[in-house]
Formats: sequence, structure tokens, C-alpha cells
Amino acid sequence: MAPRMLPLFYSLLFLQYSPSSFAKFQPRYFPSSIIHPESRSLPNNNKLYKTKYFTQILDHFNYNPESYQTFQQRYLINDTFWGGPRINAPIFVYIGNEGNIEWFAQNTGFMYDIAPEFKALLVFIEHRYYGKSIPYGGDKKKAYKDSKSLGYLSSTQALADYATLIVDLKNNLTAKDAPVIVFGGSYGGMLAAWFRLKYPHVAIGALASSSPILQFENITSQYSFNNIITQDFRSESENCYKVIKGSWEEIKEIASTSRGLGLLRKSFHICKNYISGRYLEGWISTAFVYTAMTDYPTPSNFLAPMPAYPIKQMCKAIDNPKFGNDTFAKLYHAVNIYYNYTGDVSCFNFLDDSDPHDLGGWQWQACTEMKATRGMPNTVNKHIRSRPTWITTEFGGHDITRVLKRFGSNIIFFNGLRDPWSGGGVLKNISESIIAIVEKEGTENILF
Amino acid sequence: MAPRMLPLFYSLLFLQYSPSSFAKFQPRYFPSSIIHPESRSLPNNNKLYKTKYFTQILDHFNYNPESYQTFQQRYLINDTFWGGPRINAPIFVYIGNEGNIEWFAQNTGFMYDIAPEFKALLVFIEHRYYGKSIPYGGDKKKAYKDSKSLGYLSSTQALADYATLIVDLKNNLTAKDAPVIVFGGSYGGMLAAWFRLKYPHVAIGALASSSPILQFENITSQYSFNNIITQDFRSESENCYKVIKGSWEEIKEIASTSRGLGLLRKSFHICKNYISGRYLEGWISTAFVYTAMTDYPTPSNFLAPMPAYPIKQMCKAIDNPKFGNDTFAKLYHAVNIYYNYTGDVSCFNFLDDSDPHDLGGWQWQACTEMKATRGMPNTVNKHIRSRPTWITTEFGGHDITRVLKRFGSNIIFFNGLRDPWSGGGVLKNISESIIAIVEKEGTENILF
Repeated sequence: MAPRMLPLFYSLLFLQYSPSSFAKFQPRYFPSSIIHPESRSLPNNNKLYKTKYFTQILDHFNYNPESYQTFQQRYLINDTFWGGPRINAPIFVYIGNEGNIEWFAQNTGFMYDIAPEFKALLVFIEHRYYGKSIPYGGDKKKAYKDSKSLGYLSSTQALADYATLIVDLKNNLTAKDAPVIVFGGSYGGMLAAWFRLKYPHVAIGALASSSPILQFENITSQYSFNNIITQDFRSESENCYKVIKGSWEEIKEIASTSRGLGLLRKSFHICKNYISGRYLEGWISTAFVYTAMTDYPTPSNFLAPMPAYPIKQMCKAIDNPKFGNDTFAKLYHAVNIYYNYTGDVSCFNFLDDSDPHDLGGWQWQACTEMKATRGMPNTVNKHIRSRPTWITTEFGGHDITRVLKRFGSNIIFFNGLRDPWSGGGVLKNISESIIAIVEKEGTENILF
Repeated sequence: MAPRMLPLFYSLLFLQYSPSSFAKFQPRYFPSSIIHPESRSLPNNNKLYKTKYFTQILDHFNYNPESYQTFQQRYLINDTFWGGPRINAPIFVYIGNEGNIEWFAQNTGFMYDIAPEFKALLVFIEHRYYGKSIPYGGDKKKAYKDSKSLGYLSSTQALADYATLIVDLKNNLTAKDAPVIVFGGSYGGMLAAWFRLKYPHVAIGALASSSPILQFENITSQYSFNNIITQDFRSESENCYKVIKGSWEEIKEIASTSRGLGLLRKSFHICKNYISGRYLEGWISTAFVYTAMTDYPTPSNFLAPMPAYPIKQMCKAIDNPKFGNDTFAKLYHAVNIYYNYTGDVSCFNFLDDSDPHDLGGWQWQACTEMKATRGMPNTVNKHIRSRPTWITTEFGGHDITRVLKRFGSNIIFFNGLRDPWSGGGVLKNISESIIAIVEKEGTENILF
């Protein structure tokens, strides 16, 4: 039994307090921002892909001397199933998310499943600033040092990376005419959809899974995210919903008393080094939010080891009569399903600020351009300023149906309606070749 | 009579010598790169537009501290004909070329002509780094100082400028639903076409005039530009073509003799401070190239004051029997039509390196990304490096018909076939709404 190290800080940075609603926190990050690259390893690792590196340009859009700097971008390739250029067999490209590309490649059964039928080449490209694809000579400390070095971490640069790498790869394979289909989920799904829109000459189609491309500005209600989480829990039991909703006020009251923080620490098994009421709220809320995002029907280990239907399990704990009126006991047992399902945590350490999953990178992206809804102040801190209207200016979103009906083609949007992000997804067919597939009971899907 | 100052250096920088062909020089610049903002002024200047400025972001694609710098981007607006937002009257946007926007606005009769019928708002947006739209506090010396300060001069940044300004302007006019049509010619025509492709949510259509979007990599033959110029002259007279073709060798031979340069100086009325055979060749060639680009059927003052059908006039001089076998006299009188039609030049000064028309800006763009054909070394000098495959990676071009047929819409391409750049234009209809209008006897058209 060891104290569990929790990369907690990110959730607090992006949360917005709204005491009247159940899900009082408004996360500003996209769901796949917490991934555990090391949480799985497949036995046939060596057969899945070969690892390669491409010399990528740091800044595609400017011509300052520093723009010409390069970095090594990692990509994984599997040509086992490929029919080759002579028959113009397709190339399936996984558009890397904000994380280690190996983890995605090892978890994406879908692309491997369909590759033989299409005789497809499989390529997984890592997103800049994540995994091993780190600028500044691969030195993550240098790359993540400050806003100057992190400045080249942006969605448009990432899309240009993918275009540049794919064009070069096709030339090298003498497969200029091979059709390219891009695949992506969550943030990677947004990138996949945007890639098809911005680089139709590079990719003839996109599968964009769980990609909330409409979760910007006021296109989607800023409440949709919370409302879906609320609905996810409320659909299990009305009492579960009410207990959680009432708990925030209770925590705040206790936290403000002289002995309250000690009580809370004890109730929630927080290590002795630090606790605050606000941190605790963020910590509890995070468990509910991420569980809603990954409420899979089977046991899973995506964000954390969890049982099947974890929301149902959480509400079972909350509704358990043996806890009587002890709200904190109910909550503790509920969040334990997310934070400590394996049961090996002795106490939760709020002071851990390690960043094993590159969350600093996503934090940066969330602050600068990916802020999901309105309401966040433009200046998160003095070094990071957001550009709140940039994403819709660059990629559209307003009147998307009207625009895409005339302009786009060959995109499949998939959404599970229990995914909190689905409110910002494309849920209706836009045209004959821009298709929305909706799974009523589904949750977030990053192409498993 | 004063010595004529000639901004000559640019032509030499981008020329490629190819002694076997008539038009031995391969210009690397686009045609509208030499404009004379001050060469015209309309009497009704005040009624044509109001001048406004927009606070534009320097670097749209990165989030380094310097990316947040802003500059004042000039735009001109005329709402005389506008029907207003209530009837969703359209907005016609002129996509600024590499030059002073006032000059374009004052010469674009077409947009003013059609505005009343469409009840259109007219907006002319100046391209960054030209005219008054200079970063670094409007200080041109600072902005043009070196590759670090010039680095933000790129086509993608310019397109993002237009998108950002248009979106903001529509918000300010409470005209979010007003359809936007973009207009442009030459480089501005390429930008207009690319804008429709990259920002279909901002502009519903584009008129791209004389825009050689296929003059990149090996999409268009690298000889097409010269071949069209050759044909332009040859169509006037076979003798004219033969004299010009033979002249290059003759100049080179004379220039290599001890008294040759003096003879050439005298023959071509070059001022005494400097002459070289190579410069002279560039100077003569430039006259032929630019005259071919602007071979208008009426007297004009676009690049220089010239008569109607200047190629015909040049060939008349060359074919004039009174010059006998004096090749240099023939050539001198021919190029005089371009360089000195008003007759007020006493001698031509090769050492003038003033840059009244922002040619330094276009030179930069030509070197970094706009190089029109293959063959130019990647390193023009140690400070400027080109990215030879970037334009096609970002905007496409290969298999353009296949890509645009499925993807694009609402673009009109206009080309005059006597325009040397027309070889790189879209000359055939691509779909029902991507239309090519071709004028057999037309030359370059920047929306007069």
C-alpha cells in the first residue's frame, strides 16, 4: 500500500466554479488529455509496427531563422497488410493525440482489424511535443521550459506536420496516388476532421471519433458538458444525483471551520502534507468528470483501472444504505472507484506535481487555443494568453452544416451520447458523405 | 531630362540564364510585384473609400511571446452601395496584393461597377508588410531589417489576417450572415483562390484573376512562362523573335571585348557610373518580360507609361528597316518603349537600389515560398532559404482537378492567354461552380 501520486493540478487550473449545478466544475481540457502510456503493453509489440523518425520543421508558417529549426517526429508504420503502390492500396493514418503515440497504436484494434480487408498501410504519427516527438533536440525540459519554447505547440502546426510527413512518406514509398484516410479520436478526432477540411489534397477522407469540434465559443451551450455528466449520474439514480449536488456546499462549510480540514482529510484519506477545500472539490469533481468520459461497459484501464459501468458502481456506493447520512463516506467510496479501484492506495497525495503524461503540453494547448467553452478569462496567467476566437476563425464551426454541405466531403463523425463532449460533436448527417454515427449508450471513443 | 532611376536588382536576383531560348531569363517573381502606387491618383479619391485600421496579430500560428505582437493593418471601405445586414447584402473583399492597397482600390473599376447591382459593401484589405500595413510599429526599416523581422511575411499569415479581419468586421457590422466574396489578381488571385479553399466558412466564393496557382514544383512546365513570352513576340513578327533571340550572344561577345562595355553603354544610353554585360541582359530581358505581362490594347500606366499594344510597338522598332543590321539600335528602341516611353530619360542608372514599391517584400516572398518553378537553388543567400514544396503541401496543386471537383466550389478563374503566367493558371472548368474563363488575346488582369 503506497500513497497514490495524483497529477491533480491540471484539473484545477481549468475548472470553473458554478455552485448551482451538480457538476459544478467546467473542465477546460479535452478528455484524452490524461492518458497512461505505460498502463498497457501488448505482448506482440514488435509485430505491431516499426518505429521511424522524420525530420520535421519547427515552424511551417514563418521564415524567421528559428523557424527553420527541425525536430525528430516519431511515427510508427506497419506494412504487413499493404497492397502497395501498384494497386493504389490505401494508407490509413492515425492522427496522433496529445500523448505517446505507442499507447494509441497499441490500443487501436479498429485500424488493425480493417487493414487486411483494405490492404492498407498503417501509419501512426505522433503529435509534436508529446511522446518522443519533442523539439529542441528531444529535450523535454528545454521544450517545455517556457512560453517561448512551447509557443510552437499549436493545432495548425500539428496539422502542417501531418501534411508534410504524409506527402514526404508517399514520395518515398513511390505511392503518390495511394489514397490516404486519417483516423483520430477526441482531440485527435478534431485534428482528423480539420485535416480533411484543410488538406483535402492530402487525405481523401477522415474518421473523427468523439471530436467536439463545435465545443467552441457559443456554438454549443456552455452547459452541455455538465448537463451530460449530470444526466449520466441521474440516469442511475435520483438520489445519487442529489447527494453529489448537495455535497459541494457541505464540503465548503466544513472546510471553513477550524477542525474541518482535518475531518475532510480523514474522510477522504488525504495524505497529511496538504489539503484545502477547493483542491478537494476539484479532486472529487475530476473523478466524476473522467468517469463520465470513460463509462465503458467492460472493465478498462484507460484513464485508471476501473470496473465495467463505473458510474453505476459510483452511484451504488452513494446509494448504499450502510453509509446512512454520511455524505463524505458516500463520496469517498464513490471516487475511490476512479482513484483507487485496485485498492492499493494508502493515502492520496495532493502535492504531487509530476507530469508523467505530458499534461503540461495539453494544459498549454487548452489555455492558448483549445479552451472548450466561453467564460475562461483571456489571461490565464501572465505568460499564457488565450486566443478565444482563433479556432472558429481558422476551422469554422458556426453554421457548420451550411458550410460543410457545400464544401466538405468524406468525413465520418462518431459520438457516444453519454460522452460529456458529445454535446460539441456533429450528431446529424450533413451530406451524403459527411456522416454522423451516434451511439446512444456510448461514451468517449478513441478508436479502440 | 533626368537620369531614370531603375529598381533593377530584383530582376537579376531571380533570373536564370538559359542561353538557348529566346526569353533566356526565367523570372522568379510574380507579375504584380512591380507596381507604382504613386503612378495614378483618381480625382474622386475621397469618395472611393474610407481608410481604417485593424489591430492585427503578428503570428497567428504560434504562441511565443513575440507571436502576440500586433500591427495596424490598413483596409479601405465603401458602404455607398451596401444594402446592409437586414437583407444580408454581400461583402466584396479585395484581397490585397504585394503593394499599396490604395493603388489597387483606385484601379479596380470592376468591383465598383458591380457593387450597385449586388448592393455590396466594398472592402480592400492591405497585405501585411506592404503599403501602410507594416509590423514593428509601422517602421518599415525595422520590419524589413533582416530575416528575423521579415519572417512573418508569408502567404499563410496573410490569409489568416484576412480571415481574422473579415470575421471581426462582420461582427462589428452585425452582419454575421452577410455572404463574403473575395476578389484578387495575380498573387492576390492566388490568395483569393486559396482563401476560398482554406476558409470556406468565411468566404462563399472567389474570383481569382491571372492567378498561376499551378506554377509550382513540376505541375506546370518550367518553360511555359518563357514559351508564352516568345509566342507573344513571335506572333508579331518572325524577324522580331529572331533578332531578340540572337541578341544575347551578341551582347555577351561585345561585353567580353576591351572596348565593348563602352560601346554597349553608349548604345543603350546607360549612365556612366556602372555597366556590365550581365546586368544589361537582365535589364533588356526585364523590359520584354514585363511588357508581355502588360500588353494591353490601350495606353496604360500599370508598370510604366506605355502605348497600346506595346509588344507590337517593340517589334515595329526592331523590324524598322532604318536600323539596318544594328541589333543594339533595334533593341534600344524596343526597350525604350518600356523604360522611356515618355522620352524624359537622359540615361539609365543601373546602380539605383531604391525600393519605392516594396519590392524587397516580394523578393522575400519569392525566395522563401513563392518561387514559381523548379530550378532555383534552395539557398538564395545564406539568410534566405526557400521551402520548395511548401506551397503544394499547404494548398495543393497536384491533381487539382480531382481534388477540387470533390471538394471546392464557387471559384472563378480568369486568365488571358498572352499573359506569361497563364501557363500556371486553371484554364479549364473543374466543376459546375469552379469555372475557368479564358480570354485568348488577354494578358494579365488585376481587376481593372
